[in-house]
Amino acid sequence: MSVIFDAELKKLKSRFMEMGIDAGEQLYQATKAFLDHDNTLAKAVLSRDHTLNDEEISLEKRALKLMALQQPLANDFREIISILKASNDLERIGDYTTHIARATVNLNEAHHVASVENEVTQLAILVRQMLEKIMDAYANLDEKGAYEVANMDLQVDVIYVRQQKAVLKAMQAKPSQIPAYESYLGMIRTLERTGDHIVNLAEWIIYIASGKLVELNPGKADPKLVQEKLKQQ
Amino acid sequence: MSVIFDAELKKLKSRFMEMGIDAGEQLYQATKAFLDHDNTLAKAVLSRDHTLNDEEISLEKRALKLMALQQPLANDFREIISILKASNDLERIGDYTTHIARATVNLNEAHHVASVENEVTQLAILVRQMLEKIMDAYANLDEKGAYEVANMDLQVDVIYVRQQKAVLKAMQAKPSQIPAYESYLGMIRTLERTGDHIVNLAEWIIYIASGKLVELNPGKADPKLVQEKLKQQ
Repeated sequence: MSVIFDAELKKLKSRFMEMGIDAGEQLYQATKAFLDHDNTLAKAVLSRDHTLNDEEISLEKRALKLMALQQPLANDFREIISILKASNDLERIGDYTTHIARATVNLNEAHHVASVENEVTQLAILVRQMLEKIMDAYANLDEKGAYEVANMDLQVDVIYVRQQKAVLKAMQAKPSQIPAYESYLGMIRTLERTGDHIVNLAEWIIYIASGKLVELNPGKADPKLVQEKLKQQ
Repeated sequence: MSVIFDAELKKLKSRFMEMGIDAGEQLYQATKAFLDHDNTLAKAVLSRDHTLNDEEISLEKRALKLMALQQPLANDFREIISILKASNDLERIGDYTTHIARATVNLNEAHHVASVENEVTQLAILVRQMLEKIMDAYANLDEKGAYEVANMDLQVDVIYVRQQKAVLKAMQAKPSQIPAYESYLGMIRTLERTGDHIVNLAEWIIYIASGKLVELNPGKADPKLVQEKLKQQ
């Protein structure tokens, strides 16, 4: 019984890692398509719309069957529960990649604003790095690494607030470009939320490693922090 | 110990019910604001953006603490796990209500198209009814009721596909009204996805009641069904 349980738990973990890698690829390709104005790539992202959804359902079933098989030890229990919840954060990130891809397809090529797109690129790269780092932290159950990734999210919040203000100002100055600016607003909002879900992943990794339930989103816990950081720049 | 456990489990259930009621209210007000062009109400919905998010986190913590307190019996275990996951579906519905509210605020009053809005109202009412019915089914652990709600989602998918086609056609005919039509597309897409999350809730209720893990989304499981239903109309 225990041999089956251990083998199934290993599979559950590796499937969760796979899901993390798939989410990372979707995010990479969706942001690349947006920034390269590559409709073909955006449509490819949209065509994989249900992949992460299906992976979440499959992980859910595996996790529940595993817990029915045998009463897990405390450590294993935390890992299974965390995968059960964290798979949802990955699925949500996947959902956001389809928002980005849809915005790419909708955006009229004539309306791109290069200066804004350079800024958005900066945010996209940061969020992509966070997702990579958090899956590494999961693979190594690296509590310290998870805290580091969560801290990076404050920088995401700062860039988000700064870019949002800049885009809103530019919108007023050039109303003819409002559709493009609106999709930039959507893009940075989506990236900021992706950062929040990566922080959730960090919280689950810390729960697996230590049993502690922590609330790590620094910008959400204390919006003043974002304002202070903004002033420092 | 068991007395504390039972009391805490009761609290968990009633908090989950409360969260369902809050999600229903947010959905009601967001759709009402959209259809009445009521910016003040839409902003009120946006101001409660984090309520369902906070409720999910609080349910999560309660559920995990409860399972640490005492090894739950199979029935209780299924209920706790289901609340842990289903709270996410309610949170996501809350997230969609903010999409609807944001679209309401963004939509220029000059561009409303009454005929489309009448159709959208029909879809909004159907989805709101589904959410009410599913929380009733949860309260009574009514497996049959849960199946009935899941079946209603096929009708949502049919209306969604029909309305989407109609709006895209209207868009081509009147390009000047594209911004309004785009927000209608967003609105019906959001309502259709809300329906999917209500089906997830139905699946969790059936899991609590029977221990069976089922996949109930009829339109997603078999897209041909939607096409057939469309032809019948």
